[in-house]
Amino acid sequence: MASIFTKIVNGEIPSYKIMEDEKHLAFLDAMPLVKGHTLVIPKQETDLIFDLNSEAFKDLFGFAQKVAKKLGTAIPCKRVGIAVLGLEVPHAHIHLIPMQSQQDINFGNERLKLSPEEYTEIQEKIVKA
Amino acid sequence: MASIFTKIVNGEIPSYKIMEDEKHLAFLDAMPLVKGHTLVIPKQETDLIFDLNSEAFKDLFGFAQKVAKKLGTAIPCKRVGIAVLGLEVPHAHIHLIPMQSQQDINFGNERLKLSPEEYTEIQEKIVKA
Repeated sequence: MASIFTKIVNGEIPSYKIMEDEKHLAFLDAMPLVKGHTLVIPKQETDLIFDLNSEAFKDLFGFAQKVAKKLGTAIPCKRVGIAVLGLEVPHAHIHLIPMQSQQDINFGNERLKLSPEEYTEIQEKIVKA
Repeated sequence: MASIFTKIVNGEIPSYKIMEDEKHLAFLDAMPLVKGHTLVIPKQETDLIFDLNSEAFKDLFGFAQKVAKKLGTAIPCKRVGIAVLGLEVPHAHIHLIPMQSQQDINFGNERLKLSPEEYTEIQEKIVKA
């Protein structure tokens, strides 16, 4: 069965897209730790990120770097953090998290509940950055 | 002044090295969240990881992928997690963390205190993997 992220890639589930190329997609996390929390995925479904071949792995992070620069410009933060856990959705994904402190990267934290208007506002800010 | 990581690269501060090439170094974190917690750095001192040029950024993660595969083989864990925070030492570094649960990537957790014998045992396991 297709992962929830493959359904996002295929447009079967809506998302707030940030950046896209032939092989990669970045979109706002639906359960964000902070405003601007973004997921970066390879469109090709692969569970374990380290199973990507070396070129695909490097290209995925190269794409994430471009997204992170936009995030850092658009969202006030000290740093944009990177996290890969891979224990939830079995489709490799990189979390990009605009941080004020190291405690912003704690996946035990309560998630933000944002309105569609808030998501759209954040999306537009990042896309335009 | 040289960062503490540059001093490790130069051998002025000892470390438990895991893997090395011309441009990158991996060594055991001196304040590990879990056994096998490893840092991956570019030898060239750069504060912000996203300031590396695209090739250097991708190569750093390509090197980290090799290290992570060794870690995943040597240390019993569900996944090897990746984290970049960058709020502590001003020399770009990637944390590789063998995880049992998502709570293993919480930088507010208490750090392990390991003996030199324990560090050496972990180092040897990973290097041989």
